Amino acid sequence: MTSDIGRLYLGIDGGGSKCRALLADASGRPMASVTAGPANPFQDRAQALASIEAASRGALAQAGLGEADLSRVVAGVGLAGVNIPSVYAAMAAWQHPFAALHLTTDIHIACLGAHGGEDGAVIVAGTGSVGYVCVDGRSHNYGAHGFPFGDKASGAWLGLEALKAALLHLDGLGPQTALLPRIEGALGASGLELVAAMAGASSRDYGALAPLVLECADAGDPVAAAILADAAGYLDALARRLLSHGVSHFALLGGLGARLTNWLAADVQAALVTPRGQPDEGALRFARSRPQARTAALG
Amino acid sequence: MTSDIGRLYLGIDGGGSKCRALLADASGRPMASVTAGPANPFQDRAQALASIEAASRGALAQAGLGEADLSRVVAGVGLAGVNIPSVYAAMAAWQHPFAALHLTTDIHIACLGAHGGEDGAVIVAGTGSVGYVCVDGRSHNYGAHGFPFGDKASGAWLGLEALKAALLHLDGLGPQTALLPRIEGALGASGLELVAAMAGASSRDYGALAPLVLECADAGDPVAAAILADAAGYLDALARRLLSHGVSHFALLGGLGARLTNWLAADVQAALVTPRGQPDEGALRFARSRPQARTAALG
Repeated sequence: MTSDIGRLYLGIDGGGSKCRALLADASGRPMASVTAGPANPFQDRAQALASIEAASRGALAQAGLGEADLSRVVAGVGLAGVNIPSVYAAMAAWQHPFAALHLTTDIHIACLGAHGGEDGAVIVAGTGSVGYVCVDGRSHNYGAHGFPFGDKASGAWLGLEALKAALLHLDGLGPQTALLPRIEGALGASGLELVAAMAGASSRDYGALAPLVLECADAGDPVAAAILADAAGYLDALARRLLSHGVSHFALLGGLGARLTNWLAADVQAALVTPRGQPDEGALRFARSRPQARTAALG
Repeated sequence: MTSDIGRLYLGIDGGGSKCRALLADASGRPMASVTAGPANPFQDRAQALASIEAASRGALAQAGLGEADLSRVVAGVGLAGVNIPSVYAAMAAWQHPFAALHLTTDIHIACLGAHGGEDGAVIVAGTGSVGYVCVDGRSHNYGAHGFPFGDKASGAWLGLEALKAALLHLDGLGPQTALLPRIEGALGASGLELVAAMAGASSRDYGALAPLVLECADAGDPVAAAILADAAGYLDALARRLLSHGVSHFALLGGLGARLTNWLAADVQAALVTPRGQPDEGALRFARSRPQARTAALG
């Protein structure tokens, strides 16, 4: 057995917009928390590695530690995209500076954080959408298939549906909707200029339109309300599918999560719980839960 | 007045997959017809110009004429994308080899061809979709906003909706559908491999899945039938919008047109006519209908 004295634990929550690192001592007591740049290895492996290193060194510095202490760190890293075997393999091949690195998905650490490491389920509704459940050490994923064919009820999906509805109204081929003037205002483009403004747009560009759908629906626009009802119907089905695996509750995460709660069915809302912790806390928990032997072998 | 003797007329139908050229003598009698490569100036201006030149020289050669005869040619050119001012300007700036070049949209020449130059309307349902009506020299466009937010009822739209339905079935979040095994077979990928197979797919990649929707619907698959019913509802609304401008009939063009006819509403089917001619014939008609003065000035 390797002694735990002097060991450090690091939880890394990497995503397409930023990377958070949470550093703890051997007993698990938090020492530092920092944020660095994007860390999505599917989009840009080199950038992801640089962001993880930057966040790690930053956390050590914040704790009054230095470069040499990287070799004492057991890192738990949750990243989008590592459910894809080639992305996982590319990350696993990294000659990292840590004593050990334990790799898993972003949704896994989100679930560990939300339920304090216990069995449970999460739905993340942000730019993308995904459902995840973990019961008795077995996990199941739903959704997260990507834009434009997956990620229903995500910000990108809401924005795309809103633009479709606005263009149908513009052509007189769909019902009138306040989404048209609101999107025109947001993009600084009017009428058919919307087409040029959104040609080749990314899922994040579409996601930026999602708040307009919520605002229009709140203001009574029936087209926006129908889009949200469609999204909520999907989230209801997704939640029930997760609960069918034998958990009694789920957490709704992501930038849109809180905004969509009121649109869910009563039975689904009844199973909703507030997350206990954040994904970086889940990543730290993941690092601490890994077997010692592997850590020692790699350390 | 410039004499018409010795003048040649050329109709060019340029599109994203090919470019057709129809050559006629001063009296309008067809002399040659050839096909060359893609000519979509929005996607690739240099390629479009090269394809138009290749088709033009090919048509002259087929008619037993040569390079020097290009200066006798009045060309009518219908191209996708030239409804966008910057694309039109880039094409209009071309130092072309013709006596004169008259530029218009692909849908305009399709309508001129379908109705022999008379007032009328067309809907094109191919990889994309668009509606167009011309009455008393005034025209109106609907749709054609592009993928993924426009072009409802197009091949790309059908393919995207089919993939969405297949993935919902795969996750157990939507009804069972034969689209899943059919798409898996077409892409040589199963289950979640579909996501990687279609990540970053083009509108043409999605359009390639459209025939599966028609086949599954014909075989009684309710999910495929619902997608086609949604598409047909849009085409019904589009046709009625076109007819509201005061024409009594429309033609349904494009690779999917004939396959969708039976799904249209009875009143819409009643207004449907068979096209009299092809788009390259419309382009030739367009070339011949332009004022002489402009031709003389440029010739």
